[in-house]
Amino acid sequence: MPYRAPVEDFAFLFDHVVGLDAVRQTDRFEDASEDVTRAILEEAGKMTNDVLAPLQRAGDQTPAKLENGVVRTSPGFADGFKAVAEGGWIGMSADPEFGGMGLPMTLTTAVNEMMSGACLSLQLAPLMSQGQIEALEHHASDAIKELYLPKLISGEWTGTMNLTEPQAGSDVGALATKAEDNGDGTYAISGQKVYITWGDNDFDGNICHLVLARLPGAPAGTKGISLFLVPKYLPNDDGSLGNANSLKVVSLEHKLGIHGSPTCVMQYDKATGWLVGPEQGGMAAMFTMMNNARLGVGGQGIGIAEAAYQHALAYALDRKQGKTSRPDGTGTIVDHADVRRMLMTMKAETFAARAIALCCAKAIDMTNATGQAEWKARAAFLTPIAKAFGTDTGMAVAEMGVQVHGGMGFIEETGAAQYSRDVRVTAIYEGTNGIQAMDLVARKMMDGGEAANRLLDEIEADAEAARDVFPNMTDALWQASETLREATDWLTEQSNMDTRFAGAVPYLRAFARVLGAHMHLKAALADKGGPREKLARFYILRLLPEHVGLLAHAQAGEADLFALSADELAA
Amino acid sequence: MPYRAPVEDFAFLFDHVVGLDAVRQTDRFEDASEDVTRAILEEAGKMTNDVLAPLQRAGDQTPAKLENGVVRTSPGFADGFKAVAEGGWIGMSADPEFGGMGLPMTLTTAVNEMMSGACLSLQLAPLMSQGQIEALEHHASDAIKELYLPKLISGEWTGTMNLTEPQAGSDVGALATKAEDNGDGTYAISGQKVYITWGDNDFDGNICHLVLARLPGAPAGTKGISLFLVPKYLPNDDGSLGNANSLKVVSLEHKLGIHGSPTCVMQYDKATGWLVGPEQGGMAAMFTMMNNARLGVGGQGIGIAEAAYQHALAYALDRKQGKTSRPDGTGTIVDHADVRRMLMTMKAETFAARAIALCCAKAIDMTNATGQAEWKARAAFLTPIAKAFGTDTGMAVAEMGVQVHGGMGFIEETGAAQYSRDVRVTAIYEGTNGIQAMDLVARKMMDGGEAANRLLDEIEADAEAARDVFPNMTDALWQASETLREATDWLTEQSNMDTRFAGAVPYLRAFARVLGAHMHLKAALADKGGPREKLARFYILRLLPEHVGLLAHAQAGEADLFALSADELAA
Repeated sequence: MPYRAPVEDFAFLFDHVVGLDAVRQTDRFEDASEDVTRAILEEAGKMTNDVLAPLQRAGDQTPAKLENGVVRTSPGFADGFKAVAEGGWIGMSADPEFGGMGLPMTLTTAVNEMMSGACLSLQLAPLMSQGQIEALEHHASDAIKELYLPKLISGEWTGTMNLTEPQAGSDVGALATKAEDNGDGTYAISGQKVYITWGDNDFDGNICHLVLARLPGAPAGTKGISLFLVPKYLPNDDGSLGNANSLKVVSLEHKLGIHGSPTCVMQYDKATGWLVGPEQGGMAAMFTMMNNARLGVGGQGIGIAEAAYQHALAYALDRKQGKTSRPDGTGTIVDHADVRRMLMTMKAETFAARAIALCCAKAIDMTNATGQAEWKARAAFLTPIAKAFGTDTGMAVAEMGVQVHGGMGFIEETGAAQYSRDVRVTAIYEGTNGIQAMDLVARKMMDGGEAANRLLDEIEADAEAARDVFPNMTDALWQASETLREATDWLTEQSNMDTRFAGAVPYLRAFARVLGAHMHLKAALADKGGPREKLARFYILRLLPEHVGLLAHAQAGEADLFALSADELAA
Repeated sequence: MPYRAPVEDFAFLFDHVVGLDAVRQTDRFEDASEDVTRAILEEAGKMTNDVLAPLQRAGDQTPAKLENGVVRTSPGFADGFKAVAEGGWIGMSADPEFGGMGLPMTLTTAVNEMMSGACLSLQLAPLMSQGQIEALEHHASDAIKELYLPKLISGEWTGTMNLTEPQAGSDVGALATKAEDNGDGTYAISGQKVYITWGDNDFDGNICHLVLARLPGAPAGTKGISLFLVPKYLPNDDGSLGNANSLKVVSLEHKLGIHGSPTCVMQYDKATGWLVGPEQGGMAAMFTMMNNARLGVGGQGIGIAEAAYQHALAYALDRKQGKTSRPDGTGTIVDHADVRRMLMTMKAETFAARAIALCCAKAIDMTNATGQAEWKARAAFLTPIAKAFGTDTGMAVAEMGVQVHGGMGFIEETGAAQYSRDVRVTAIYEGTNGIQAMDLVARKMMDGGEAANRLLDEIEADAEAARDVFPNMTDALWQASETLREATDWLTEQSNMDTRFAGAVPYLRAFARVLGAHMHLKAALADKGGPREKLARFYILRLLPEHVGLLAHAQAGEADLFALSADELAA
């Protein structure tokens, strides 16, 4: 069964769970009516189903390769990217002044998830461009905006992010790439960057690299970093392509998954670049790009979860094996209780992760539309959760998809294993999930837990209001929320950051569990007696109890983590 | 850092946790003194470290391939197998009458784990032979024993298991391979078998296939199945090789991992075979092979967990990135609390899974030495737990190993990803982990929970006895054991098998959690104030609480699993 975009699920979530109406009621997004969002979901779904999904296996089987210094992309990828570009899907949320559609991030998040589920390797190309567009919108000079934005938004050109160096991964501040002022408004960029996603391709006109580098005399660490725009071809004033810049792809990485996405080692040798934002303001600009990229990566995990679920369900509905006692059965393995447990888990988790990501996107939209600090704090708080839980869900669901297939799951031709290989990187890039969790319990709790507690207040109010309708579910949710509140209070009281960090990952997961239960409760209220109530019941009564163990872990402190010496760890 | 066999850990477990002394005190195993077991562990460790470990990457990078109908094995594998054979490691527990060493399965389980951690693909070859040796010892005629056992034990020949057919995977009873009586004491076997591990190789004299097939007029299902020994070459009476049998390797599977292990599609075309055990007694004979293979596969998961842990620890001790506040730090990522959380989890889980597997092996030894029903019941109860928890731990630890590596984990050259690819199949073959859990809550609870409760009695007695020494840990363990006992009682009261199956996987995992805590407590008691107490503290206070959520899930019944129709699942 090929991938089918979950259009109905998105429409339901917009209307009944996420509350997109609040976004539609703002001046900025008044055009995003229900009809419009519906039409866009359907149009995007057609494109992902018909154009992108058929490329997914091809990307795996015929990886991108480097030939004479040029990347040759997987078969069909050039046409696939063209379809994405022509549909306007790159610039959905971009500024209309430069050709964007100015639509809410909530909608972009939905469409990005669909593209990821259909073909993750290819989707990374527009995702990188989207991040660059946003960074340039916020930080670039008018001249750069006018020259670059229309071409990035139309897909004539593409964008990349160049942060990592061999010695500077999670610790970006350790980077060594140099920038020197040429005295003519340009800079000479020199150094090597690694893990550059879509660092080159053979299907568009120019590849625009946003490169972090250090000016002479800049302070050490992240404070001394500046951001430069370094195009593959130096554009003429009219936007036509001029000379090749002094940069090259040195090699491609041989990776566990996303073989269709070329991951490049880039070499800059006094390449010409333009400053974006102020000198030594590179990290602020990069964070603009990274925050949305984090939400986008969360969506990649969810897209793969959806695709892996569909793929496993189709197998379970088809595969005859063993006998069951189900009188209403289909005669296939879907009638086995344990296969059902896996499928229901996959479906319920995917829904929860998707709803959380869309709530995060809505908070971004409300921030952009209203400027309210509360929405900004909520977006900031939900971003690491959306990223880590979305990608952890992608990994877990893809693994279960392999398991549903039994022995066939281990055979590459089946395709189940590809999902688990492809999705693996999403828990690593754009800040590992451990770093997301550390961000949550440190930076995102500098408000003393205010953003967290405001979410918990809403959850408990909703639970109270629905008590008569669903007594069991609301009671379980309310109790879980209170337990989470206690853990939140405990964490915010810890001044030793290692104490917080020691519980960061289980705390983030527990928070996602409770948020997911809240999302399922809302869905159940909009579908009483229907399948969404049944799915909610499964999630809240079977999966939510996981929070107990997680929160015990989250509050256990750091002492025992450091109790063993390096020698004892190795013994 | 190359793999180093955890010899000290095994010796400690034998003496202080598993209680190998009880085995040593039996007549059958009186030769397995502490000196002997120690010497064997060290000898095996040398072999795995020096000979097998260097082959692990080669097997991945140069997979076995089929050339003109013959399997060409990965570079160095022939010498590796020779070293295993010459060390006597295949027949460690085999009957001394035919050249075996007659040693306890506990020791074989330790050595098998070491071989798996060093090179899983290659280790599958001796593991298959071990299963065949045991099946022949129990079920074959004297003539077959005398001809085949010495050669299988010495490694001159190898053995395989042929169960699965395309339409008969988990449902072995659906198999269609035919056997016809030739009237001369032999049978003609015809049919296709899939997923045949090490179905062929280019380094030993003969490959002996144990094949399940159906005689004319045999009843449907598992009752009508007989077991046949079908060698690649028909042996002459003196054991020399005669004519080639009428069987062939049709193709090799293209798999996610264990590329060095040829997974064959086998075609039998009136191949000559000999009956093993009575007609239509095939399943009983096959179960002999499968039970030990299940424990062996559990050990494979643990071996990969050990190897992945060592690999990740070496990286964490070497990789400089970011700053921490640890005053006693090494300056590498091992000083980060979240990296520590991962490493401690990996180490504590690996220890727990290893101890459980060895307890299962000890129960097998005690059964073989004493014939006592209680030991037999314990071995039967622990086998599915050892298999499923060992392999789930292998997967989880390998995934964490990738995560510790950050971006490097996704690059194949690093080697971290190979562990996660290789280990994936262990949760699938020899009965998926879901099937292990179903076995636990159905067949293994036909005693009304007696075997389970006897284990819980022991756990609680040990917790009581240690109350004054470790009040927190023993209290947590005792409470967990009682919660597990309630769940056990609830499950055994359910006459609807789907109700049990619906909670089978979380129940098995919760049982493993509690058993693991018991093992850690014993280790702590033998190492008060030392690193094993510290590791126990981590496990019991941070990981054990997971049982709460699991047991809620285990007792939630089957209704909500089947609440959605097939259409609703697909919506």
